[in-house]
Amino acid sequence: MARRCYTAAVTSTPFARFCSACGSAISRRIPTGDTRERDCCDTCGRIHYVNPRPIVGTIPVWGDRILLCRRAIEPRYGAWTLPAGFMEIGESTARGAQRETEEEAHARVEVGPLFSLLDIPHAEQIHIFYLARLLDLDFGPGAESLDVRLFAEDEIPWEEIAFRTVATTLERFFADRRGGNFGLHVLELPAGAPAPGIPT
Amino acid sequence: MARRCYTAAVTSTPFARFCSACGSAISRRIPTGDTRERDCCDTCGRIHYVNPRPIVGTIPVWGDRILLCRRAIEPRYGAWTLPAGFMEIGESTARGAQRETEEEAHARVEVGPLFSLLDIPHAEQIHIFYLARLLDLDFGPGAESLDVRLFAEDEIPWEEIAFRTVATTLERFFADRRGGNFGLHVLELPAGAPAPGIPT
Repeated sequence: MARRCYTAAVTSTPFARFCSACGSAISRRIPTGDTRERDCCDTCGRIHYVNPRPIVGTIPVWGDRILLCRRAIEPRYGAWTLPAGFMEIGESTARGAQRETEEEAHARVEVGPLFSLLDIPHAEQIHIFYLARLLDLDFGPGAESLDVRLFAEDEIPWEEIAFRTVATTLERFFADRRGGNFGLHVLELPAGAPAPGIPT
Repeated sequence: MARRCYTAAVTSTPFARFCSACGSAISRRIPTGDTRERDCCDTCGRIHYVNPRPIVGTIPVWGDRILLCRRAIEPRYGAWTLPAGFMEIGESTARGAQRETEEEAHARVEVGPLFSLLDIPHAEQIHIFYLARLLDLDFGPGAESLDVRLFAEDEIPWEEIAFRTVATTLERFFADRRGGNFGLHVLELPAGAPAPGIPT
């Protein structure tokens, strides 16, 4: 493989220690024609780009209630969340959201409109939630959940919601429902927790 | 590091050959508690997840015209595109879209509402476009562009648009503008090109 010309090595910490293509050591350099430091292999010339990861989930609705899952994994073991997880290779955002709902809550949903897209730059993630219609009440905890339950608005355990993106999505959902119209909510959640104990 | 228990190695092709944490060989296995094959390191136990990557861009508007860039890089060298590129670590989708517009077209924009979110599962990407208002006419080709120009609807070089996501976003943009209302367009572009010669 042709080796690219690099600028001198820089001192920021690489994401990786070794090249996943050839196994040699990684240096942090600015590739020719680029403006940012990247993980670069000095042996095979490969540049290893790192990008934010999409998280996809649903807001499963049954009448006036919505479905939440109690987490059986870290982070935020025991806290409540909407069903959501890392988007997989080969699926769309909507199908990923549906799959996560099936996996975490054993729940079947009809996925509806996109409801929220939340940027969390410091966590290197985008969280994407779709409105969804729960198709039946035959749900239950998947391997990553301790419990799955339906909550009316006045039953939501706000102090025990796992993530800011979930709390924000729920707040917007109930506000829109009171207003009679579901909008799209695109916002950035900067570092620093407005709600104590709720990360990301 | 604790080694995890894995199922027997499976035969699908790993994304990586070597572990980026310890440099050992990668096996394709289904980790305990998972349902999918992952790149797993048999030496240090690390699991290397791979997820779809977000592409972010803008539709820069100046009066009745929009800005397009002629690509100076592969793929689709010489074809026209909206300014867009891979989202970087540490930025939001909107700021990434603004940065790409600045880099590819040396153009300053005020980023507006989210306009399209296009899933391309076979390319392992999500393309996200924001409406944007061009702030002045002091633009020009960045390092990855041969040319940058404004186009009215009847001047769009439809046969020379670089990507299906861009063609789709432009079609929806002009249709919405004729209708007097800009909506949100969430759709999946499956494999197989409806427009000959236009990949992704």
